[in-house]
Amino acid sequence: MKNQNRRLPGTLYLGARDMIRLVQRKGLSACIAGVAERIRRDFLRWSEFDKSARVACHSRDGVIELMPIADGRDFAFKYVNGHPRNTREGLPTVMAFGVLADVATGAPRFLGELTLTTAIRTAAMSALAARALARPGSRSMALIGNGAQSEFQALAFRNLLGIRELRLHDTDAAASAKLAANLAGEGLRLRVCRSTAEAVHGADIVTTVTADKTNATILVPEMIEPGMHVNAVGGDCPGKTELHAGVLSRSAVFVEFEPQTRIEGDIQQMPGDFPVTELWRVLAGLHPGRADASQVTVFDSVGFALEDYSALCFMRDAAAELGLGEAIELIPQAEDPKDLFGLLRPPAPVAARAAEAAPAGLAA
Amino acid sequence: MKNQNRRLPGTLYLGARDMIRLVQRKGLSACIAGVAERIRRDFLRWSEFDKSARVACHSRDGVIELMPIADGRDFAFKYVNGHPRNTREGLPTVMAFGVLADVATGAPRFLGELTLTTAIRTAAMSALAARALARPGSRSMALIGNGAQSEFQALAFRNLLGIRELRLHDTDAAASAKLAANLAGEGLRLRVCRSTAEAVHGADIVTTVTADKTNATILVPEMIEPGMHVNAVGGDCPGKTELHAGVLSRSAVFVEFEPQTRIEGDIQQMPGDFPVTELWRVLAGLHPGRADASQVTVFDSVGFALEDYSALCFMRDAAAELGLGEAIELIPQAEDPKDLFGLLRPPAPVAARAAEAAPAGLAA
Repeated sequence: MKNQNRRLPGTLYLGARDMIRLVQRKGLSACIAGVAERIRRDFLRWSEFDKSARVACHSRDGVIELMPIADGRDFAFKYVNGHPRNTREGLPTVMAFGVLADVATGAPRFLGELTLTTAIRTAAMSALAARALARPGSRSMALIGNGAQSEFQALAFRNLLGIRELRLHDTDAAASAKLAANLAGEGLRLRVCRSTAEAVHGADIVTTVTADKTNATILVPEMIEPGMHVNAVGGDCPGKTELHAGVLSRSAVFVEFEPQTRIEGDIQQMPGDFPVTELWRVLAGLHPGRADASQVTVFDSVGFALEDYSALCFMRDAAAELGLGEAIELIPQAEDPKDLFGLLRPPAPVAARAAEAAPAGLAA
Repeated sequence: MKNQNRRLPGTLYLGARDMIRLVQRKGLSACIAGVAERIRRDFLRWSEFDKSARVACHSRDGVIELMPIADGRDFAFKYVNGHPRNTREGLPTVMAFGVLADVATGAPRFLGELTLTTAIRTAAMSALAARALARPGSRSMALIGNGAQSEFQALAFRNLLGIRELRLHDTDAAASAKLAANLAGEGLRLRVCRSTAEAVHGADIVTTVTADKTNATILVPEMIEPGMHVNAVGGDCPGKTELHAGVLSRSAVFVEFEPQTRIEGDIQQMPGDFPVTELWRVLAGLHPGRADASQVTVFDSVGFALEDYSALCFMRDAAAELGLGEAIELIPQAEDPKDLFGLLRPPAPVAARAAEAAPAGLAA
C-alpha cells in the first residue's frame, strides 16, 4: 500500500490540565516574563504581520470573537468570549482556545487551551506597555476589578516593573478578599480600599480590569493625578468602557492596533481623529512615549491577535520542551490526497490483507 | 470543597477517525441527504443568522479562512485552508475543522474534524441548489475536476437529482481514473473525456470543481448550451475563478451570501452591480429561480458559513446518536470562576486532605 501522505504533520493538543501543568512546572512568573519578551520581539517586527481587527459576534449577554493573524510562517487565531454574567452561574467570564497552523500548507499544528494563557498574556502586555510608558521608579498600583485576571496583573507588575504596593478595589468585596488571600506571601504590600477613589489616590499606576458590559466611568478626571499611568484593560468591546472621556482627553493615549481599538477601546467614545499612538512605535524607538514626569499616559488595551500569536508560540515551545500535550488526528490522513472518498472504504478483512502481503507462491 | 462550577459543560471532540466511523455507520448517502435537508431548513430561516463574509489570510501558495456565523443559540465557525499545491507533497488541498459554542455563555461545546464534512456539505449544497435551478428531469452531468471532492458531488447529484450519466474530465488523467474506479458499482454510467468541451457537450448540468488558484476559463461561452445548469464550485477566492465572464453575462446567476460572493466568486470578474439572486430566496419561494427551459442558470458557489453551521449541527447530533467522540477539557474548570489563579495551586498532599475530610474528633 502506498502512503504518500506520511508528511501530513500531526496536531499537538494541549488541554486545560496540561496547560496548568505547564505553567506550574515553568512557574507563573517565568511564563509571564517569557510571554512578555516574546510579545516585545514580535511587536518589533510589526510590519511582517497580516493584521486585521477581530471578528466579533455580539449577543444580549456577551460577545464571541475570532482573532486571526499571520506572519510568513505561522497563522494563529484565538477563539474567545466575554460574558460578564457567566460568573453568576459558576462559569468563567472569559474562555479561550487557539490554534497555530503552517501558512505554507494550511495544516493545523497546535491546538491549545487559552483561558489561563489569556490572563497571562494580557498581564504580560499590560506590564510591557507600562514599562515603556509609566514613570521610572513607579512602586504603587491601584487595581480596580479583582476578578479572574487580577492576580496575573499584580504579579506581572511586581516582576516587570517593581511594583511593591497594591491598592485593591472591587464592587464585590469577596473578589478583593480572594485576591488579597491569593497574593499573601508574594512580597506585595496590600490594602483593600472601599472605593476606586481611595485606591487610586497617590498611586503611580492605575489598572482597571472590570467585567461589566456597559459604558462605565470607573475613572473620572478628578481622580487622575499628574504623572499617573493608566492601564485600562476592561474597556474592550463596543458598549464596554471604563474611562470617563475627560480622562482620555487630558492624557497621551497608546493603543495596540489602532483600527481595532477605535471600535473596541475606551477611545470608542472619542472622535475618529482623536490622537493615539500605536505602542509598537514606542517599543521600536520611533516615538518617545511619555513626554515628561507629569504627563498622564493611558494604555487603552483591548487585546490584539498578535499577543495571542506570541503566547501560542511560547506555549507550543514550552510544551515541546516539557513533553506535554498529545498528538490528535484533527485532519484525516488519506493515502492519496485526491482520494478523500477512499477514507470511507471499509478496511480489508484481515485474511485478505495477509494474503495481499504474502508472496504469491506461499498463498494456500 | 465547594464546586460552583459543575455547570461548565464539556466539549465533545470528534476527530478524524470518529468522523470516518460516523459517516461509515450512517452511510455517505444518508449523510449527504441529511446535511442537504439541514442546510435547506437553515436557509429558510436566513434572517435569524448573524452573517458576515469570511476572514481570509492569503499567502503565496494558498489561503487560510475563518468562517463564523451564529443564530440566537449556536455560534459556529470553521477553519479551512485551500492550498492547491499541497497534493504534490502528499497533503490534502483542503483541511478543515470547526466548533459549535453556546451563544448564551460562550462555552465551546463541539469540536469536529471538517475535512471530510466539507466535501459532504459542499456536495449537499450543490445538489440542493441544482434541485431548485436545473431543468426538471436532468439526467447527465459533466464533472470537471476529479479531485478530492468529485465523488461526493457525483453521489449527491445521483441521490438528490437523479443524475444517471457522468462525463469526467481532469487535466490529471490519474484523478479521473481514481474517480471512475471509486464510482464503479454506484449505478452511474461513466465516460472519461479527453477535454472539457467533450465532457460538457450535451450535458444537462456542468459541475466545475477545480483546484488551481488562478483566473482560469474552464468554461467558455461556446461550450454553453441552452437550458444548462452550471454548478461552479472551484472559483471561490480572489484570483481563483473558473468561468469566462461571457458565461456569466448570458446566465441567471445565483449565489449563497452576496457580500461574500462579490469578493470570492466567479462574479469577482463582473461589475459590482451585476445582477445576482441569493439562493435562499428561491428556496423560500420569494424568487422563481429558472425562468424557462432554455435559460442558462449558474450557481456561483463559494461556500458559506451557514452551510458549515448546518453540517456541524448534523455531525454533532449524529455523534450523540451513535455515541462517538470523546469529552475533552478545552476550558479549565476553576472551583470559583473568579479564581483562575487558584487553578495553579498545587493539590494539597493526600495526608492533609484526609485530615481535612475527617471529623475533628478523629484526628490523631
